[in-house]
Amino acid sequence: MLKFDRPPQNKSLLDESTQFTPRFDEKGLVTAVVIDARDNAVLMLAYMNDEALSLTIETGIAHYYSRSRDKIWKKGETSGNLQHVEAVITDCDQDAILLKVTMDGHGAACHTGRRSCFYREVKVSQDSVTLESIDNDRAFDPDAVYGKS
Amino acid sequence: MLKFDRPPQNKSLLDESTQFTPRFDEKGLVTAVVIDARDNAVLMLAYMNDEALSLTIETGIAHYYSRSRDKIWKKGETSGNLQHVEAVITDCDQDAILLKVTMDGHGAACHTGRRSCFYREVKVSQDSVTLESIDNDRAFDPDAVYGKS
Repeated sequence: MLKFDRPPQNKSLLDESTQFTPRFDEKGLVTAVVIDARDNAVLMLAYMNDEALSLTIETGIAHYYSRSRDKIWKKGETSGNLQHVEAVITDCDQDAILLKVTMDGHGAACHTGRRSCFYREVKVSQDSVTLESIDNDRAFDPDAVYGKS
Repeated sequence: MLKFDRPPQNKSLLDESTQFTPRFDEKGLVTAVVIDARDNAVLMLAYMNDEALSLTIETGIAHYYSRSRDKIWKKGETSGNLQHVEAVITDCDQDAILLKVTMDGHGAACHTGRRSCFYREVKVSQDSVTLESIDNDRAFDPDAVYGKS
């Protein structure tokens, strides 16, 4: 497993550093934004602990940390939609990761079968706030892939 | 201020609902991924409490919650790089927000003067993990805009 050095005390040193010192939060996690390498579409948002980040960098396959299941999550292990990592990019203060990926399988990142988890737009009319679908295409049937819940 | 209904107990109801019930975490925050409406480039990642989310939806100008300053943060108030919101999109389990924005001013989201906060790529050689710049263009001089730190 890769060892990540601790971030400097002085946060301003993080901006221009060539040293990768990810700032894991109090739960030991950084946030990962995942985009499709083909067109930069945002696919999903997930979390990584040091082990998931190390596995992702070392294997080139995206690994996350599942907060609900409290364990390492090799994305696509069940559905076949493995994510091949084209680039790992960090932000100015190194507490977020941007992953550029290409997907195996159905080419979908969302458990609902859609390519992206971001498939509903917030709409406001008078005082009501509702969601409107912007993507009804399903690349796979979740019941068939994960079993009926 | 907009009132957001509480999320349902049954998480699976969140996926296909047309009701917007953002799932704020134990600190009262959701994560926001901000992309440039022109080309989908990821600009930054930030956090919103209910007030910031409401202000963003009601005014069409992106507002976040600054965790370090512990207050509402109207992005670009100092630098002039206000973010005009073209779309507010949520994810399957409604704990993340995707904002499509166009920027005023210098057209830059990062406090370093760069368009995006994600300007360094992680590179691995043997056992060392380093960062390599992928964007050296600065749209503004941070010292001139924010004052010398």
